[in-house]
Amino acid sequence: MRLTPTTELNDRCRRLQCLMAEAGLDAVLMVQNADLFYFTGSIQQGLLYVPAAGEPLYMVRRDHGRARMESGLKEVIPLHSPRELPGIVRDYGYVLPQRLGLELDVLPVQFCRRLEKVLPGAAIDDATPLIRTVRAIKSDYEIGIMKDAALIADKVARRAAEVIREGMTDLDLAAELEYEARKAGHQGMIRMRSFNSEIFYGHAFSGADSAVPSGFDTPLGGVGLTPSFPQGASYKTIRAGEPITVDFVACFDGYLVDQTRIFCIGGLDDRLERGYADMLELQQAFAEKARPGASWEELYDFCVDMAADMGYADHFMGAPGARVAFVGHGVGVELDEYPFIARGFADMHLQPKMTFAFEPKIVFPGLGAVGVENTFWVEEGGLKSLTFSGQKLQVL
Amino acid sequence: MRLTPTTELNDRCRRLQCLMAEAGLDAVLMVQNADLFYFTGSIQQGLLYVPAAGEPLYMVRRDHGRARMESGLKEVIPLHSPRELPGIVRDYGYVLPQRLGLELDVLPVQFCRRLEKVLPGAAIDDATPLIRTVRAIKSDYEIGIMKDAALIADKVARRAAEVIREGMTDLDLAAELEYEARKAGHQGMIRMRSFNSEIFYGHAFSGADSAVPSGFDTPLGGVGLTPSFPQGASYKTIRAGEPITVDFVACFDGYLVDQTRIFCIGGLDDRLERGYADMLELQQAFAEKARPGASWEELYDFCVDMAADMGYADHFMGAPGARVAFVGHGVGVELDEYPFIARGFADMHLQPKMTFAFEPKIVFPGLGAVGVENTFWVEEGGLKSLTFSGQKLQVL
Repeated sequence: MRLTPTTELNDRCRRLQCLMAEAGLDAVLMVQNADLFYFTGSIQQGLLYVPAAGEPLYMVRRDHGRARMESGLKEVIPLHSPRELPGIVRDYGYVLPQRLGLELDVLPVQFCRRLEKVLPGAAIDDATPLIRTVRAIKSDYEIGIMKDAALIADKVARRAAEVIREGMTDLDLAAELEYEARKAGHQGMIRMRSFNSEIFYGHAFSGADSAVPSGFDTPLGGVGLTPSFPQGASYKTIRAGEPITVDFVACFDGYLVDQTRIFCIGGLDDRLERGYADMLELQQAFAEKARPGASWEELYDFCVDMAADMGYADHFMGAPGARVAFVGHGVGVELDEYPFIARGFADMHLQPKMTFAFEPKIVFPGLGAVGVENTFWVEEGGLKSLTFSGQKLQVL
Repeated sequence: MRLTPTTELNDRCRRLQCLMAEAGLDAVLMVQNADLFYFTGSIQQGLLYVPAAGEPLYMVRRDHGRARMESGLKEVIPLHSPRELPGIVRDYGYVLPQRLGLELDVLPVQFCRRLEKVLPGAAIDDATPLIRTVRAIKSDYEIGIMKDAALIADKVARRAAEVIREGMTDLDLAAELEYEARKAGHQGMIRMRSFNSEIFYGHAFSGADSAVPSGFDTPLGGVGLTPSFPQGASYKTIRAGEPITVDFVACFDGYLVDQTRIFCIGGLDDRLERGYADMLELQQAFAEKARPGASWEELYDFCVDMAADMGYADHFMGAPGARVAFVGHGVGVELDEYPFIARGFADMHLQPKMTFAFEPKIVFPGLGAVGVENTFWVEEGGLKSLTFSGQKLQVL
C-alpha cells in the first residue's frame, strides 16, 4: 500500500504556512476528505490543525490506530470530541488563533457553527484559495502516481476498441470499461470539490445522446439512465456512423487523470470527422501557448477565438444555451482543482508542475459531439502529457 | 425513463408545507441534489422555493429545457442568477419570507452567505429535520422502485455464489459484483447526506480484512486499496474457511436498498457459524419488536442487550474502540436517511412506510466478521422485507 512520504507532507505543510503568513492567518483547520488526504496522507474521521509555524496536529476521532499507520505526520492525536481541540492546541505550545482559516466552500453551515463554538475568539476566514494554491503545484511523487492512473485510462481506451459493436447499448459499453478499470485497481470513488458535483467513472455515450445539454458542468453530459443521475451512459443503442465518446476518469491511489477518445463504427460524416481533426489542431495550438506565466483566461479566450475562426462559434464547448465557460480544469486529488482554463481567471497564471485536463469539444445537436481530452503537466519548456493513448479517430 | 409523477410531487410538497406551518417557516429553499430529486423529480442546476402555501417554484440555471422534461412540477422557471430570486417570488404573488428554511447540514458556508445576500431580510432556520421527516415516509410508488433495486441486490448475491473461488482477491470479487449490478441498470452514483460520507457500491471483503476498524461510519469498513479511499475491498486473497462479506448497495432510478450476505468456501469455524446464526435470530427478535410506535433508541438498546446476552458484548457492531452506535439506518434516495435505529433517538418512533436497513453484525479481530443485512419497510402489522435473497450461510 502506497503511503504518502513524510517529506511530501512536510513540504505541503510548509508551503501552506508560507501562504498563511502572507494572508495573516494564525491557523488553518481542515476537515474535508480530499484536503485531509493531501495534508495527512490519511482520511480518518478527524481534524487537521495547521499552526502558523510548527508541526501540524492531526486529531482523529476514529480510527486513530489506522490514522497512525497511514499518516506520515509526527503528531496523530486521539480525539473524542471537538471540544478537546483548544486544550490539545495549548498542550502543544500553540497560542489559540485569532484569525482562523476554514474550508468555507465545502464546510456545511452546521459543522462550521460547531467549530466556531469550539474556538469562540477566532475570526473566520476562507482558507480554500490557499489550500487550492498549494495543491495546484504537484511534486514528482504526485506526477508519478498520475502516470500510474494514466495506465488505467489507456487500458480503458484500448478495451473500448475491443468491445464496441453495433447493437450494444451505451450502458453495456460503460459497464465493460468500468469493469476493466476496476480490475486494474481503479479506486472507484472520484472526488469533486464543488457542492452538488457528482461523477461516476466518466461518460460513455454515442450519437445524438452525446449532444444533449446537461446541468452537469461539462461540455458533454449525456442523458443518463434516470433523472436521478442525469449524466453519462443511457440505454441508447450504438449504431454505425455515430461518434462514440469515451470520456473516462482514471483514479489510482487517490490521483486522477481525465482522458477522452472518440470511436466510431464504419466512419463518421465529414462534418464530424473534420471537427475532430480541428480539435486536435486546436489542442496543438493551445499546447504551444500554454507556458508558465500564461494567463488562464487568455488561454481560454485563445481557444474560443480559434474555434470561432474554424467555424465553431455555435458549437464549441456545448450547444448554444448550454455552453460551459472553460476548456480545461485542474486535476489531482479532485477533478475540479486549480488551474481553470476558463473565463474569470485573468490574473491567474500557469506555473510549472500544475496539472490539468484540456478538453476542446464541439457539439452538433441531434447529431453528436466530438473532441479530445488529455491530462498535462506544465514544465518550463511547455506541456508534457500524462495521458498517452493514440489520438487518431478510431474507426472500428 | 421513469419520471416522478406529479401526484407524488404534490403530496411531498403538501406534507412539507404542513411541517413548515408547525415550525413557523414562511418558505424553504432547497439546493441539494437528493432533495431536488425528491421534491422536483429532477436534478438540474437550480433552486427550489417552497412557499408556506401554494405551488413550489423550481428555478433552473441549466439545463432549463431538461428540467421541464424531467420535472412534474407546474412551475419550472429559467434562472440566470440567484439575484433574480426575490423578483420571481414576488411575480408569483408570494410575500418574501421572514423566516426561511435552508438545508444547513449540507449547505456550504459560502453558498449560504450568497443566499442570505439574496434574501437579506430573512431569519435563517434549519429545514433539514423537516425535509428528513417528509422523506422518511415512503409512498407505494417509492417502495415499488425499491423493490426493483432489490432485484439488483439479489442478482449480485447470486453472482457472488457463482464467482467466489479460492485465490481470487477481494477486489476481483468486488469488480465482478459491480459489473453484474451495472449491467442490470445500477445507476452507479450512491448518495449519502452526511458531510464527508462516501461509498462506492458497498463492500466485499474476506477474513481478517472484514474486521479491521474503519473511520467510515459502519460496523465493517474494510481495508480498501489505498489510504485515499480506506474502505471496501483490498488486494487480499480469498482463502477457504474465511467469512466473505458481500455488503452491497443497489441503486436503481434514484432509490437504494442495502443487503449483506455471508459466503465461505468449505465452511467456517464454529464461533463464526454460531455467530451468524445468532445474528439471524437477533434479526427475527428485532422484527417482532419493530412495530409502528416503537422508539428508535429502544429498538437499538434491545439489540445491544440481546447481543450482550448472546455473549457478544465486545463484538457487536464493531470491535472494542471501533463500535458504531447504530444497528439500522433509513434508506431511500440517500443511504443515511431517517430512521436511525441508534442511540440518541429516544423520542423518535417508527411509523408506517418508513424504510430502513437493519444490519446486526459481529466482529472478531484477526478472524473476520459475520452478520446479515436486509432492507425493510414498516407496516401496521410489522416489518416487510424489500430484500429477499436467501439468508442461509452460503457454503461454497
